[in-house]
Amino acid sequence: MSGVTKAAIIGGGVIGAGWAARFLLNGADAAVYDPAPGAEQAVAAVIANARTANARLYGAALPTEGNMTFCATMAEALAGADFVQESLPEREDLKQRVLAEIDTALPPHVIIGSSTSGLLPTNLQAHMAHPERLVVGHPFNPVYLLPLVEVCPGAKTSADTVARVAEIYTQIGMQVLHVRKEIDGFIADRLLEAVWREGLWLINDGIATTSELDDAIRYGAGLRWAFMGTFLTYRLAGGEAGMKHFLSQFGPALKLPWTKLEAPELTDELSSTIAAQSDEQAGGVDLRTYERLRDTCLVDIMHALEANDFASGATVKAHRARLGAPVALGAQDADGRLLTAACPVAPAWIDYNAHMTEWAYLKVFGEATDVVLAAIGAGPDYVAGGHSYYTVETHIRHLGQATLGEAIEVRTRVLAADAKRLHLFHEMTAAGAVIATAEHMAVHVDAAAGKSAPAASSVQIAAETLVAAQAGLPMPEGAGRAVQMPK
Amino acid sequence: MSGVTKAAIIGGGVIGAGWAARFLLNGADAAVYDPAPGAEQAVAAVIANARTANARLYGAALPTEGNMTFCATMAEALAGADFVQESLPEREDLKQRVLAEIDTALPPHVIIGSSTSGLLPTNLQAHMAHPERLVVGHPFNPVYLLPLVEVCPGAKTSADTVARVAEIYTQIGMQVLHVRKEIDGFIADRLLEAVWREGLWLINDGIATTSELDDAIRYGAGLRWAFMGTFLTYRLAGGEAGMKHFLSQFGPALKLPWTKLEAPELTDELSSTIAAQSDEQAGGVDLRTYERLRDTCLVDIMHALEANDFASGATVKAHRARLGAPVALGAQDADGRLLTAACPVAPAWIDYNAHMTEWAYLKVFGEATDVVLAAIGAGPDYVAGGHSYYTVETHIRHLGQATLGEAIEVRTRVLAADAKRLHLFHEMTAAGAVIATAEHMAVHVDAAAGKSAPAASSVQIAAETLVAAQAGLPMPEGAGRAVQMPK
Repeated sequence: MSGVTKAAIIGGGVIGAGWAARFLLNGADAAVYDPAPGAEQAVAAVIANARTANARLYGAALPTEGNMTFCATMAEALAGADFVQESLPEREDLKQRVLAEIDTALPPHVIIGSSTSGLLPTNLQAHMAHPERLVVGHPFNPVYLLPLVEVCPGAKTSADTVARVAEIYTQIGMQVLHVRKEIDGFIADRLLEAVWREGLWLINDGIATTSELDDAIRYGAGLRWAFMGTFLTYRLAGGEAGMKHFLSQFGPALKLPWTKLEAPELTDELSSTIAAQSDEQAGGVDLRTYERLRDTCLVDIMHALEANDFASGATVKAHRARLGAPVALGAQDADGRLLTAACPVAPAWIDYNAHMTEWAYLKVFGEATDVVLAAIGAGPDYVAGGHSYYTVETHIRHLGQATLGEAIEVRTRVLAADAKRLHLFHEMTAAGAVIATAEHMAVHVDAAAGKSAPAASSVQIAAETLVAAQAGLPMPEGAGRAVQMPK
Repeated sequence: MSGVTKAAIIGGGVIGAGWAARFLLNGADAAVYDPAPGAEQAVAAVIANARTANARLYGAALPTEGNMTFCATMAEALAGADFVQESLPEREDLKQRVLAEIDTALPPHVIIGSSTSGLLPTNLQAHMAHPERLVVGHPFNPVYLLPLVEVCPGAKTSADTVARVAEIYTQIGMQVLHVRKEIDGFIADRLLEAVWREGLWLINDGIATTSELDDAIRYGAGLRWAFMGTFLTYRLAGGEAGMKHFLSQFGPALKLPWTKLEAPELTDELSSTIAAQSDEQAGGVDLRTYERLRDTCLVDIMHALEANDFASGATVKAHRARLGAPVALGAQDADGRLLTAACPVAPAWIDYNAHMTEWAYLKVFGEATDVVLAAIGAGPDYVAGGHSYYTVETHIRHLGQATLGEAIEVRTRVLAADAKRLHLFHEMTAAGAVIATAEHMAVHVDAAAGKSAPAASSVQIAAETLVAAQAGLPMPEGAGRAVQMPK
């Protein structure tokens, strides 16, 4: 897939292991060399994380994984490699020495990428017989997920090497940023290092803690930075008048002591250069379109984080709860039915018709079943003890629809119960109308044995008590029905 | 909802309009004053964007929107207000003058928040008779979506004001960051300003363009910054040994010219302070847990961006296509059945029993139904034309189990079809064994009219052709079954 059949990964720290994972998961073999104690286990742990994450990201699209070898010598890792990625500690002398050694071991057409965060490739290639094949390919942690790789040639790197390495990185799913002028720290790390150093000052001066510094980013600008950098963001902040207007309005703040970093003089020339670059970057797409795209991306990112109950997603989740009035699940109505779900229709549940999608109904009904199980003493603690009810049969009827944010509730009947079975009937309502029903047969199992078994007698009694409490109700309309064409 | 009934918004630029939107959408009235030409239209445009975005974010959880008034005078905006948010241009003299004027107009219990990005509240409150009610509440654009607000008191701000304003901002869905020491630029803008100034230098020196600078963030560190700041990120990069190890390893780079910003001396004391703060921030949660959380958030964010085909989401989408050799869904077996799903069991589908969970079966079956619809010419284009099939009834049987990553396939029979109905029967297999079946009745609808209607004749013919092609197969075992207790 990558055009590379065997990648030699020299240095197996967090970065080297991430590279190995990227090649392996995209179908190439990887041979890792790192003499540090414990390196093999650490590499294996990173690859395991990478496998899980990429399976979620790409699913079945991934090719057959390549073969991973952890090598005892560098020579073994290099033998037969058609690409090398060096990820040693950031010491110029160390990198120079090892790169010269790799250079000697491999035919000159094999490209060597260096993961250095900021050392100059011209210096790194100084002692190589074939310096034209050395190029910086600077990735970001976790390498197996973040797409960015900065490609920076040294003075002696060939144009062919730059073109070929960009193709190799693209083939393993990365986004290449060509660094056109060699500079310490390249592009990304200059920006990251400025944030890092400013943060160190703020801690040093007792202004903020690491946690406060992180919050200052992740609840604010960091959400935008996931998809728009600083310049497009500020262009939007500048409003209709665009970048030139923004610069004239906010330029004076460059004179204020808002960071330890002195700003360049905002000359007319610099201001015009930025405005022209920003116009080109915007590519003629108008401001309103970008604003809508920005808002859509932000909402989708916050929904993604809400599913993880983390960072701004936790804020949104808390506010959603604050806006609503939560209800106690498992409470019994006067007629004996249990209230088993009460929630708004979540954004992830909406289909292309703008309605709540099929599987989301079963998700809510499944959670309603869990509420019933908890109510009869077969909740998580009972499951942890090795017994559980498994749903073996389900019948759903769709009688109406629900839309984003609409409040839905589920009320549940236990139609019948015996030693091994529960026969449940859920009714889902929105604005008082029944929009769906679900009828389930659940069977009690001994999880270890993998077969059905009688429930604990306390559970049986609790289930039968519920059946009795609801016995006054008529059999629900729609129960016992099969799917069939009308006669 | 916010405790605020009428918020006076003084200054109606992008920030002021965003504040107005936040109050309105959380149920408070907002009165905006801004004498600039075109301000009223610009404010209305921001509020319209905010309404759309918050409807997606929170759905029906939002309360009834407050009343918006655009005022001809500041006095009108302030009359009866129980909260004021000032968002004027960043000129200290201007803000001082207007804040003093607001101070005179309102009873002293009404809090005044200033949106300043970095001016000191002690200076802003200098000319107020009631300086104790002035506090900085610094938001981030778009104010109606980004949760962060920095709350910074001046020397004369009361503790009561700080507590009350934090509650007000929380009630409108914001995340409060308390700035404990007054400093130019507070916390967030010191970090943002460092990035901004470093970026200006890189443009000034001809190293990178605005577009390259943005790409350097959004394909890399920016993805992490959406949910973890710099310090937790670097803690993870440090590996098992934690922050102290990371500092010792990367500290030397602080001496390198990787940014125009000089770093503080990394003394033992500073290093220990950072490590201790980082430990406290991590809250005893171990590294592996954080790594998994990080990876899950990154994948979910990239999926969110993939849905928008933007930034790293476009990279993932392109790579998915590149990996491509997907199984051709919709292909017919020799016996006439359609292959309608082929995928591994995804991590999100696993329940507490380590098996594929109920709703995930219906998710896969639902997508299989979509493949059938596409095969008979009722795919997305047909839906866009206003017609569609809605599932009205579903019967699922669970006959086996599937575990994480296991390859599952679905094959589908069209048991019957008439002008308005499709009767489908899906069989899901894992390792050749049937683990579940789903029987569906789908009804053809005219979406606009909201009722059933005959399908296009080409669709009817395609469906009937499939029924005929499969007519040689026996009726599937389990079709036409109802959920019931054994006799």
